[in-house]
Amino acid sequence: MIIVMKENAPADAINNVLTIVKECGFEPHLSKGEQVTIIGVIGNKANLKNINFELISGVDKVVPVTESYKLANKKFHPIPSVVKVGNTSIGSDNLTVIAGPCAIESEEQLLLIAHNVAKSGATFIRGGAYKPRTSPYSFQGLEEEGLKYMQRAKNETGLATICEVTCPDAIEAAVKYIDMIQIGARNMQNFHLLKEAGASGLPVLLKRGLSATIDEWLNAAEYIISEGNPNVVLCERGIRTFETATRNTLDISAVPVLKEKSHLPVIVDPSHAAGVRSYINPLAKAAVACNADGLMIEVHNDPAHALSDGPQSLNFEQFDELMLQLKPFAKLVGR
Amino acid sequence: MIIVMKENAPADAINNVLTIVKECGFEPHLSKGEQVTIIGVIGNKANLKNINFELISGVDKVVPVTESYKLANKKFHPIPSVVKVGNTSIGSDNLTVIAGPCAIESEEQLLLIAHNVAKSGATFIRGGAYKPRTSPYSFQGLEEEGLKYMQRAKNETGLATICEVTCPDAIEAAVKYIDMIQIGARNMQNFHLLKEAGASGLPVLLKRGLSATIDEWLNAAEYIISEGNPNVVLCERGIRTFETATRNTLDISAVPVLKEKSHLPVIVDPSHAAGVRSYINPLAKAAVACNADGLMIEVHNDPAHALSDGPQSLNFEQFDELMLQLKPFAKLVGR
Amino acid sequence: MIIVMKENAPADAINNVLTIVKECGFEPHLSKGEQVTIIGVIGNKANLKNINFELISGVDKVVPVTESYKLANKKFHPIPSVVKVGNTSIGSDNLTVIAGPCAIESEEQLLLIAHNVAKSGATFIRGGAYKPRTSPYSFQGLEEEGLKYMQRAKNETGLATICEVTCPDAIEAAVKYIDMIQIGARNMQNFHLLKEAGASGLPVLLKRGLSATIDEWLNAAEYIISEGNPNVVLCERGIRTFETATRNTLDISAVPVLKEKSHLPVIVDPSHAAGVRSYINPLAKAAVACNADGLMIEVHNDPAHALSDGPQSLNFEQFDELMLQLKPFAKLVGR
Amino acid sequence: MIIVMKENAPADAINNVLTIVKECGFEPHLSKGEQVTIIGVIGNKANLKNINFELISGVDKVVPVTESYKLANKKFHPIPSVVKVGNTSIGSDNLTVIAGPCAIESEEQLLLIAHNVAKSGATFIRGGAYKPRTSPYSFQGLEEEGLKYMQRAKNETGLATICEVTCPDAIEAAVKYIDMIQIGARNMQNFHLLKEAGASGLPVLLKRGLSATIDEWLNAAEYIISEGNPNVVLCERGIRTFETATRNTLDISAVPVLKEKSHLPVIVDPSHAAGVRSYINPLAKAAVACNADGLMIEVHNDPAHALSDGPQSLNFEQFDELMLQLKPFAKLVGR
Repeated sequence: MIIVMKENAPADAINNVLTIVKECGFEPHLSKGEQVTIIGVIGNKANLKNINFELISGVDKVVPVTESYKLANKKFHPIPSVVKVGNTSIGSDNLTVIAGPCAIESEEQLLLIAHNVAKSGATFIRGGAYKPRTSPYSFQGLEEEGLKYMQRAKNETGLATICEVTCPDAIEAAVKYIDMIQIGARNMQNFHLLKEAGASGLPVLLKRGLSATIDEWLNAAEYIISEGNPNVVLCERGIRTFETATRNTLDISAVPVLKEKSHLPVIVDPSHAAGVRSYINPLAKAAVACNADGLMIEVHNDPAHALSDGPQSLNFEQFDELMLQLKPFAKLVGR
Repeated sequence: MIIVMKENAPADAINNVLTIVKECGFEPHLSKGEQVTIIGVIGNKANLKNINFELISGVDKVVPVTESYKLANKKFHPIPSVVKVGNTSIGSDNLTVIAGPCAIESEEQLLLIAHNVAKSGATFIRGGAYKPRTSPYSFQGLEEEGLKYMQRAKNETGLATICEVTCPDAIEAAVKYIDMIQIGARNMQNFHLLKEAGASGLPVLLKRGLSATIDEWLNAAEYIISEGNPNVVLCERGIRTFETATRNTLDISAVPVLKEKSHLPVIVDPSHAAGVRSYINPLAKAAVACNADGLMIEVHNDPAHALSDGPQSLNFEQFDELMLQLKPFAKLVGR
Repeated sequence: MIIVMKENAPADAINNVLTIVKECGFEPHLSKGEQVTIIGVIGNKANLKNINFELISGVDKVVPVTESYKLANKKFHPIPSVVKVGNTSIGSDNLTVIAGPCAIESEEQLLLIAHNVAKSGATFIRGGAYKPRTSPYSFQGLEEEGLKYMQRAKNETGLATICEVTCPDAIEAAVKYIDMIQIGARNMQNFHLLKEAGASGLPVLLKRGLSATIDEWLNAAEYIISEGNPNVVLCERGIRTFETATRNTLDISAVPVLKEKSHLPVIVDPSHAAGVRSYINPLAKAAVACNADGLMIEVHNDPAHALSDGPQSLNFEQFDELMLQLKPFAKLVGR
Repeated sequence: MIIVMKENAPADAINNVLTIVKECGFEPHLSKGEQVTIIGVIGNKANLKNINFELISGVDKVVPVTESYKLANKKFHPIPSVVKVGNTSIGSDNLTVIAGPCAIESEEQLLLIAHNVAKSGATFIRGGAYKPRTSPYSFQGLEEEGLKYMQRAKNETGLATICEVTCPDAIEAAVKYIDMIQIGARNMQNFHLLKEAGASGLPVLLKRGLSATIDEWLNAAEYIISEGNPNVVLCERGIRTFETATRNTLDISAVPVLKEKSHLPVIVDPSHAAGVRSYINPLAKAAVACNADGLMIEVHNDPAHALSDGPQSLNFEQFDELMLQLKPFAKLVGR
């Protein structure tokens, strides 16, 4: 932590800050300039946390120098993590591809999609059973019944399974039926849910909040890991900006930024980011090329009649073609 | 709903859309131009919801013409709502002022603050007992114990009481001890929590999400009201933008926009919006001048030692001065 | 400037940075911690500018501690500036009101509007003669001819005059006919134009860029002042965010932030910020209440037929009513 | 254009709008619903432009259905454009790589860099001679002298040359010495400069404004093309968002969006987007993988001593390695 004093802060004010820092058990480092004086305070922030230095007389601002997340931080865990899920793993040298419908509509539909995406090379089947919808009048999902269909899809295809959870009941049901849970963008800072997800023992895919900074995102991961669950995978799915040509703005730079700051695997969801079917293919290639560990892609048997997010879903043929085209890109990055 | 066809969409494609619209039981209205053809579809969207017109051959885009929220919509409820809480009300011709600490730290502290803000003219005491914190290592709140202190504060001062709730357990406890619950910005689209808040029967203060549009915010209110609970108050607390001089950007325009689109009362929280103590006074005046129904202000007995959000808290003297200065502004807008 | 070293940067790397800092003629201040080492460097940044410390081995990041603008900075000019224009002034204890059409359409129109806004109490007539339009096919303005009408409007009404300039030719013409020039949002970082505006000798109203931070805005003002022209007035006109209910998001907090960081007068343009007529009245009151030095309001004789920005223009009656309603608010803030 | 009437707009209001539409020479198409009435108006908007339908009694809103740019629009020019520059071309089946320093510092430096980037496979040398800098106290460029060095670099290496222009004088000088001019992000809506660039006859690289929508960007291109200059290339260089881990947020989706909406070539500048050297390599690969026509990369002989943007510049070795790694990606997309 660096304390920057106001220009022309009197000697008294500077001494007062020095005294407080020492009372907390630290040795302050003073740098006096003609215009500005700064005081370096290095040590465990926990000892200082109930003093607001910004409010002490003569202080201009306080600049933190270390990140608040530790368990998700590459500095303390330099080797990239591999998260095992079912018979597959995320973060190793294969390309994870999670495919399936936004919402599970029926058992027949889910099985049909699962068999098709498996044939094309997906490693996971996804499907929403608990849907967070902007309007209370939109389709809200099949809940536990949907999770049972997921289990059957797994049994028939061998695909790993993942579903979004939106409440403690959903987590409880997920533990019974599926391999991995997803925390959606709208719940990225639902800290209560993060803790329950951490306690569940299941691997967790943590989507980035619509306006979450990468720092906040890693702090959200920290909530899960600090419950004793290190199996966290991050999923970039677009952030909210002024641009309306796409549903959200895919922050592709998040991939290299996360690879530098954290050891957790990173996957990219071009479907939710773009919101438009024709942009998914080029964005998926971009994600693979810049070394994402995987992709999450919406696939539907009949996009024109999907109960949710049809316009951004691929049909079987489009998904199959994408998978074929992705292969040489994956090979180039060693997957 | 308006369906805009692609330029040069063939007659077949246009006829196909017309047929589908008719099959849903509507009469389509065709407007053919030299470049573009548009098809008006007016009626209850519910009948159409499982067809994604964007994906039908020849369709360029679909433009909705009505809002998806109904119960929160001024069109169907033109008279402004007044929400009664304890002995006071929000949305009537008094100025609601909700004051208190970000986090309740002890019973003594809360009572001290409650007596002081009551003396200065506040109508509510606020205080966080369940704190959503970015980092899992920050102070997380006193939980139910804190709510009991709130009840005592109410008994001693007559102030109405409000606390943020972050999970179903918190709502259950709130029903026992306090007058009104708050859904915080990070939970604005935690739809599970919104429904539980609706079912609780308590009046709800719904803060705007950091990157929520006004439309999404009113849809979140709709979740609460559609559970049979019409006592919703909206609170603008700043949105996330590129500007870093303030913690968030107070969207003051949200006040007149909401007054035009909805009948729900609107209050403004300049403390969280600005994040800097010296900006709160002018922003509070701005909010009152443009006809907000009230204010939420952080007040702390000793901001330099607050466990949360000290830099944006007023001390007793500053709050008292603000209340004095606000009076003539409130009078000018008829409060 | 503070140099933060990477965790575990070796002693060699630290010594190398210390050496370089000393070679530049400064004494570095070292603070060594268990995890992190920081080096304070205080002095005239100019001596260091061609060394990129971020790139030196072992350096994690560089944190500046002083602002790059000096002439616009309140620290070095603590008394608020008053800018004299024609017979009036901005930043003194009167409320500046700049009113008029977005685009000057004809001499008759401009004179009609000028007489009406003068009657209602405006101090300036505005009108666009050089219009920056998103599409090349929109009306582009009457150019020099329009400025002549402005001069006549001034002669007939006594109002001070202001027009936007978009190129050096426009500035040259402005010097002949009008009192003050405006640099529009899209040209806020057209540094060539800023310098020419500075050199013109005319007072300059500098609008904030659509996505300019307050720091960048004050640096743009610095360009004008550093040409020897201290008569700069800042105009907040809304920033670009994700919200679409208003054309832009009025950043009302910019008023108190600027009052703290700079000595330059600040006015607010609710017309361009909101883009919707009915929001202008409440936003104008908010601006006055939080101590803006003035307002810029679009007024048109016939908004339904305006060649530019009709939907956000007030008619004469609405403007007159607004001026009446603003009076007691202005009085409360001492204007 | 679609006119949406207010709910319960009376028959008189509807008839009035119909009359006005007819008076403009169009046939309106009426769609009456239980709640809402909409009126389709199709034809040349130019005939309607001086009527603001939003302001006519009973009108709720007006929804445009066609883009305002025509010459840049793929609808009217379905074949992708190829822009010839010097001995090379942009938009054909080779990968354009524009490399060089942010600012030209000396003749020796520029020639050294030019020879090195040519050896690694670049097709263009770039270098700033007229620098738009946030602060007036930063290095502003060598101006015309710098352009002469560019000419010599071309003569020695055969590379095509490109420089940013910030004012009419710069364009005049550019015509004498270099192959292509660049309009920078801060000038994307400097419409005066766009017109001069169009009139210059030189090919133009148009960078996206920091907060420009893709629609506004294509309208800016329209300004250049409508001066008779079809040789426009678009360059995505990051947009401004709330995220601060990167200097800007690279909007990689802009590539497929532009390929769908326009026929103009698209290149990507990962250096300015990321602002951090280590992210450039993965982002460059992402850009190539999603079918950008080229890249613009900052390369400097000694990044630690660069006068501008050192932290985001590659050194020769890093650039050479990037070019080698890009080759197989380029091959995969047919370049």
